[in-house]
Amino acid sequence: MFTLKFSPSFTDTDALGHINNTRLPVWFERARNDLFRLFTPDLDPKKWRLILASIKIDFLGELFYGEEIEIKTYLNKIGNSSFVVVQEAWQNGKIGSRGEAVLVHYSFENKASLPLEGELREALTAHLIQATS
Amino acid sequence: MFTLKFSPSFTDTDALGHINNTRLPVWFERARNDLFRLFTPDLDPKKWRLILASIKIDFLGELFYGEEIEIKTYLNKIGNSSFVVVQEAWQNGKIGSRGEAVLVHYSFENKASLPLEGELREALTAHLIQATS
Amino acid sequence: MFTLKFSPSFTDTDALGHINNTRLPVWFERARNDLFRLFTPDLDPKKWRLILASIKIDFLGELFYGEEIEIKTYLNKIGNSSFVVVQEAWQNGKIGSRGEAVLVHYSFENKASLPLEGELREALTAHLIQATS
Amino acid sequence: MFTLKFSPSFTDTDALGHINNTRLPVWFERARNDLFRLFTPDLDPKKWRLILASIKIDFLGELFYGEEIEIKTYLNKIGNSSFVVVQEAWQNGKIGSRGEAVLVHYSFENKASLPLEGELREALTAHLIQATS
Repeated sequence: MFTLKFSPSFTDTDALGHINNTRLPVWFERARNDLFRLFTPDLDPKKWRLILASIKIDFLGELFYGEEIEIKTYLNKIGNSSFVVVQEAWQNGKIGSRGEAVLVHYSFENKASLPLEGELREALTAHLIQATS
Repeated sequence: MFTLKFSPSFTDTDALGHINNTRLPVWFERARNDLFRLFTPDLDPKKWRLILASIKIDFLGELFYGEEIEIKTYLNKIGNSSFVVVQEAWQNGKIGSRGEAVLVHYSFENKASLPLEGELREALTAHLIQATS
Repeated sequence: MFTLKFSPSFTDTDALGHINNTRLPVWFERARNDLFRLFTPDLDPKKWRLILASIKIDFLGELFYGEEIEIKTYLNKIGNSSFVVVQEAWQNGKIGSRGEAVLVHYSFENKASLPLEGELREALTAHLIQATS
Repeated sequence: MFTLKFSPSFTDTDALGHINNTRLPVWFERARNDLFRLFTPDLDPKKWRLILASIKIDFLGELFYGEEIEIKTYLNKIGNSSFVVVQEAWQNGKIGSRGEAVLVHYSFENKASLPLEGELREALTAHLIQATS
């Protein structure tokens, strides 16, 4: 599991006084940086090997400006070339949002998906947390 | 169905040369303005009566800077107090992204959901497009 | 003078109930699209020929969600290779913000500024409005 | 002087491959959080006592995704009720952008500026760095 802690910005709020919903996809993308490094260690966009197929976010409670946010990032499924990243935004011991992003290992040169194998697959598997039944 | 047309901004792009995924939730929220007016005609945030429960976005193809975007917004389900908004982002005759947002008719004073009834329900139903089997 | 009209998004607001200051640079960049077309008619980022040297924004009054924004864009100075773009954000007959951006005609291949001459200079001059003394 | 270090997000980039100019005002606002605490210790927007009068940003060099950003924040002028915040964005030992923001100590209830005095003025003065001649 990867964790990222940061303080929200005033601009992350909206007129309802809490964090605006559109900030969560941005925060979750920011919190995937360490995961991205498994594919592109120096994060050079010219060497990018991932595409985002879909996102889903459940807004479970309000998040606020003024208190630290912690984003927990882990995987709950690894397929042949795609995988599912789960991300949770916590504040003051409560979860505020939970997201899932489906990413695909992809060659932009060949416009084709790439298998997840070898050391890369092992590195991803180290962050796999499957729900217990 | 509501439609919104606009030109993307340079800042909507990312280093892969296309529109960044995190812009779609922002565009979709912008395109819900006309829908929001059914609940709060003058859009005064102090009279707000909606909360967003979840969003889901499928990234179906690339969108680019330099060509007009059209967002189509309609409903595909109306429940007792919640409803599902479908939103499609089109460019050059192709769909680039498709989103679903679950919104709840809600009283911030009473912290309780409100029924969707009467003229409000009729107004929403006018934008209901159900998938045919 | 170029003009762009649009409705603010809920996400453009902040917890003070008005439009957040960080949205103005984004709106002003969006409103420079027509100006950018004088340099790169199809707006293809690979053919970009401008860099932004500086911005300055005065926040003169509050702007709000729920009413149309009009951005007026014109030039007040044209130098050898750089020029100054003035942008005003109006709402309900009142100016809310006024910005100035200094842009430089630039070759990314040669990493050198380019002169503003010929038809390009004429096209820019058509949008030049100088303050009267 | 306040310092904030963080990693840029992929969404902070644009199609030119570097950090988009509109992100700097957002980063600089984020980096003013510690300064805001001198006015509103718990950062509760309902107790806010500052308005932003203007910003100015010079884009001195490119900033990139993949390397840590450090924002340095200090004051270079303290007036009766307003003050000037200088902010510098550094990456890899080079300054990429330098901004100035003019803020005003302000009562939203009375719609009037407030003097900067006593402990507040002392706290601000501790972050005052004046250019040497």
